[in-house]
Amino acid sequence: MYNFRTDMADERNEFYKASNDLDKDISGIKTSQFIENKHIRRNTIDVLNKNAEKAIGKPIGKYVTFDLEDLRYADEDEIEESASIIAKELKKIVDEKMPESDGEVLVVGLGNQYVTPDSLGPKVISEIEITRHLKKYAPKYVVDGAKSVSAIAPGVLGTTGIETFEIVKGIVENIRPKLIIAIDSLASKSIKRISSTVQIGNTGIVPGGGVDNKRMELSEKTLGVPVVAIGVPMVVDLATITDECLNVLIGKLQDEAKSNEYLNHIKNQSNYDEIRNALVPDDFNMIVTPKEIDDLIENMKNIVSKSINYAL
Amino acid sequence: MYNFRTDMADERNEFYKASNDLDKDISGIKTSQFIENKHIRRNTIDVLNKNAEKAIGKPIGKYVTFDLEDLRYADEDEIEESASIIAKELKKIVDEKMPESDGEVLVVGLGNQYVTPDSLGPKVISEIEITRHLKKYAPKYVVDGAKSVSAIAPGVLGTTGIETFEIVKGIVENIRPKLIIAIDSLASKSIKRISSTVQIGNTGIVPGGGVDNKRMELSEKTLGVPVVAIGVPMVVDLATITDECLNVLIGKLQDEAKSNEYLNHIKNQSNYDEIRNALVPDDFNMIVTPKEIDDLIENMKNIVSKSINYAL
Amino acid sequence: MYNFRTDMADERNEFYKASNDLDKDISGIKTSQFIENKHIRRNTIDVLNKNAEKAIGKPIGKYVTFDLEDLRYADEDEIEESASIIAKELKKIVDEKMPESDGEVLVVGLGNQYVTPDSLGPKVISEIEITRHLKKYAPKYVVDGAKSVSAIAPGVLGTTGIETFEIVKGIVENIRPKLIIAIDSLASKSIKRISSTVQIGNTGIVPGGGVDNKRMELSEKTLGVPVVAIGVPMVVDLATITDECLNVLIGKLQDEAKSNEYLNHIKNQSNYDEIRNALVPDDFNMIVTPKEIDDLIENMKNIVSKSINYAL
Amino acid sequence: MYNFRTDMADERNEFYKASNDLDKDISGIKTSQFIENKHIRRNTIDVLNKNAEKAIGKPIGKYVTFDLEDLRYADEDEIEESASIIAKELKKIVDEKMPESDGEVLVVGLGNQYVTPDSLGPKVISEIEITRHLKKYAPKYVVDGAKSVSAIAPGVLGTTGIETFEIVKGIVENIRPKLIIAIDSLASKSIKRISSTVQIGNTGIVPGGGVDNKRMELSEKTLGVPVVAIGVPMVVDLATITDECLNVLIGKLQDEAKSNEYLNHIKNQSNYDEIRNALVPDDFNMIVTPKEIDDLIENMKNIVSKSINYAL
Repeated sequence: MYNFRTDMADERNEFYKASNDLDKDISGIKTSQFIENKHIRRNTIDVLNKNAEKAIGKPIGKYVTFDLEDLRYADEDEIEESASIIAKELKKIVDEKMPESDGEVLVVGLGNQYVTPDSLGPKVISEIEITRHLKKYAPKYVVDGAKSVSAIAPGVLGTTGIETFEIVKGIVENIRPKLIIAIDSLASKSIKRISSTVQIGNTGIVPGGGVDNKRMELSEKTLGVPVVAIGVPMVVDLATITDECLNVLIGKLQDEAKSNEYLNHIKNQSNYDEIRNALVPDDFNMIVTPKEIDDLIENMKNIVSKSINYAL
Repeated sequence: MYNFRTDMADERNEFYKASNDLDKDISGIKTSQFIENKHIRRNTIDVLNKNAEKAIGKPIGKYVTFDLEDLRYADEDEIEESASIIAKELKKIVDEKMPESDGEVLVVGLGNQYVTPDSLGPKVISEIEITRHLKKYAPKYVVDGAKSVSAIAPGVLGTTGIETFEIVKGIVENIRPKLIIAIDSLASKSIKRISSTVQIGNTGIVPGGGVDNKRMELSEKTLGVPVVAIGVPMVVDLATITDECLNVLIGKLQDEAKSNEYLNHIKNQSNYDEIRNALVPDDFNMIVTPKEIDDLIENMKNIVSKSINYAL
Repeated sequence: MYNFRTDMADERNEFYKASNDLDKDISGIKTSQFIENKHIRRNTIDVLNKNAEKAIGKPIGKYVTFDLEDLRYADEDEIEESASIIAKELKKIVDEKMPESDGEVLVVGLGNQYVTPDSLGPKVISEIEITRHLKKYAPKYVVDGAKSVSAIAPGVLGTTGIETFEIVKGIVENIRPKLIIAIDSLASKSIKRISSTVQIGNTGIVPGGGVDNKRMELSEKTLGVPVVAIGVPMVVDLATITDECLNVLIGKLQDEAKSNEYLNHIKNQSNYDEIRNALVPDDFNMIVTPKEIDDLIENMKNIVSKSINYAL
Repeated sequence: MYNFRTDMADERNEFYKASNDLDKDISGIKTSQFIENKHIRRNTIDVLNKNAEKAIGKPIGKYVTFDLEDLRYADEDEIEESASIIAKELKKIVDEKMPESDGEVLVVGLGNQYVTPDSLGPKVISEIEITRHLKKYAPKYVVDGAKSVSAIAPGVLGTTGIETFEIVKGIVENIRPKLIIAIDSLASKSIKRISSTVQIGNTGIVPGGGVDNKRMELSEKTLGVPVVAIGVPMVVDLATITDECLNVLIGKLQDEAKSNEYLNHIKNQSNYDEIRNALVPDDFNMIVTPKEIDDLIENMKNIVSKSINYAL
């Protein structure tokens, strides 16, 4: 498998096609696009068979991506409208995975609340409208037939010493929800997508995609409960940027100097490791992020939490 | 049982004796005191039988209280010394409950991190030295024979929708620790003890003693693992203060006016409900707390987290 | 002057009348009430002469109080509506004090951001829409004829070592605004008003009314610029509560025991000092506050900052 | 002048020499190095004349740089030792600029507390031991002959609408300190120096060097009071990294392909603008920073604030 360095299904699909000089999607990948409004585009990728799964390294399932333009500092109306659009799709996915309208949903906010670009999950959790305890202890405050919603931010291995998977599994076994919605920060290859894109997938999630090491996956296979994943890119890896930078330069050199065999060779092999060694100190986990990341996360927290609250 | 309105074993014992006009401890209660240094006194209460348990509403076991004087704004040396003193006792209790020196300990920070006077537990968690994941993934970084430590802040029912007990039980079943240490904010009857007293008990804890409603207990009985509890009073209930205020006044009136039957009657019956109705609005959860509670919690977080790190 | 232990003009007026057994307002005090909607009542007190100023210890001027009922956890629509109502009155007061519609306004957030119940001022500042630098460096982004708005949180004497007055005076001399709007946390005598009442005054403010010691006043007299003050009660002093508690009890005793001279005597003299000595430790600054103060301040921050943004 | 893209005097000196193919420092630049201990190296650059000032774009004066190795997560002893070493040099510079040992010092924390990598200044301020108000209101708590210390975090133009210079000037005119110490986040060209280097200069500072736009300088010339600057690199500009990345690659290509005229040409001209256009979106302020920046700032806050407290 490629080292995609992105958690976004659509970026992986593009990368796969580019790497193999393909004009169109391979069999087993179905893509479609939709303009929601002047700010929001929706991109859907269906991974239909094992072949496609292997190509882009994403399990069979559906991946819906919302690209939000000029909404990094959205006003209240824009947040409402964006959340409604995303909620509609989220609700559809939730309903497919959990037909009973009054089922119990556990919302899981992945990531480390003390590391700014990794804090989206825990921050969203603090805005989710919790009803599970009301249904149990004060049912008169809950509308009949409403879903029962609980939420937890399990922290990360480095601060708890416990795998996220172990914590979630323990809770699932005790409270037996019918569906899990997991929120996480992701990595993208594109600076433009930072805090501007929301990906919803119906096949689970591997915690720590964005800024931490990969961990045991949360999915129906491992937990016995369907897992809907909501992810937002918050960082681009520094090595990704430098690699991209090299490709741009080499392309430029080739245009001028005409085909240069050595350049061609460098471009084809991945420069990733070489450059990482030259530029990125080993003992560091350098990320590229907007200076205003603290504000951007507040904004995205509002959009994502409202999307979930509306969908449930 | 009395409505003690305090989680402190020694306060309950005093209250019980005063209410029953007793000069000394009842059979089944054994108390001792020790001066640690000019700032710190240690108070030990052993609850030895069912009779004592019923009298003060605390399960059979040992309760050690450290009263810290003039240490609300401790400097670094004072924090170190206090933590060492507390750690010594804590280690003794831990060793009794878990003889294997390299056993696995789960530290649980109870309380709501977004409610200042209830945030001690989650704040302590963020300072605990976690080693469980190192033992598993990077054993060379861990001293041979060291304990394996993990930590979690499970949140509160109101923000997760899940009983703290259910979360902790799920984790315990998955990671199977040999001992739990639980930290919580408590309620005291005495303003002087706020952020100045540390109680260690070896019989578990009922989450939410301090500022939340009582919940299902965490104990060896319910979890199958011994639970050592560390609590620090952070608030006094407003009704407790007003009740106390009435008792002071009535005592004063009686001194002056000589035995007044009506006053006597009022003093003997609890004025609690009456006064609460007159003074404390129903829809409020009013607490009495020092203005500087944010700073005090930082201070206490340092003392408690160091105590635990040293003891483990 | 009385020790009012409240910064609210209407509470002082009531207290003055009660203490002097008056049925109606004294000459020089004019009061009026208005029901804004089912949640909000507006109370206006005009202090018209030196006599009235002396009686209630508030300078000649206008004090408008909005009591917000059931809005401690307001939803977005309620916040909008409340802010609009308050903004209308605030705009009227601003326009009286600064007729030029494009004048420069300096918003000052008083209080200590690291002490939760004193943090309203600094928190509101972070939500104010600042335009002064745009007018100067990027005028095309500012509507013609709009006010120029700047904002500062000067901190408190204990953390800066500098009087708030000295800081504000220095800034005023350098940027020469036409009007100052100052926001501060206040003390009230009533638990019900905590985080539920907004007082607007047109005569300046003495920083630290709520939870800190009184400091040099910010007013047109001291700064040469009109100062509009916005205050929200966030705490009740513990001694205030205990005093109130005594009055309730004594009243009750008197009802039952018929006129009791000694009780009468106690009620007439202030029990404040006596009780404070008996109950409230000296070295403490104990406050009574709702457990949920962190959340309440977020809510009030939204209402107040929107009120200011709409008014300007 | 060059676009140095670094605020560090030693990096600028190296860059100047490299750009002009010089083996040693130009006349007017004097450099020296000193090994403080196994973790800390001290680098001193004296800018002695106008010629040197023009070459590296730093005013005539002294610039001392401490490089801290392996201290990003320092324990308490390491923090103490580092702070003592830095404090010794800081004290020397302070004493030169303000001979009176009991003079008044104003500490200014530059930067935006709500933008993580720009928050060092305000965070340090909250740890400074303030004595000015004690000297005034409670002199018995202050040692005779001690300095009078006050501190302020003036915010940034974008959130106050007021130039930092205007705020500081107003305060200086009102409280008339004898010396200013200003702390700011800086930009470096080297990832290795992020949160690992402390630069002390005796000639003032231009706020916003690190992550904001350049603003009016704080210096003896503009404020009438000497200004000692303490800066810590917290970010590297993304365009700087990509430029560096190109240089590494071009060097590598040249080694292999032998002297290639076009490559040579590219290497000599600055690739900065070209690459910025290709890679770095215009409407973004992308920075490169360690994932763990929140923790690193806590660590550096402790070192810098203790350095200042010890020096004063």
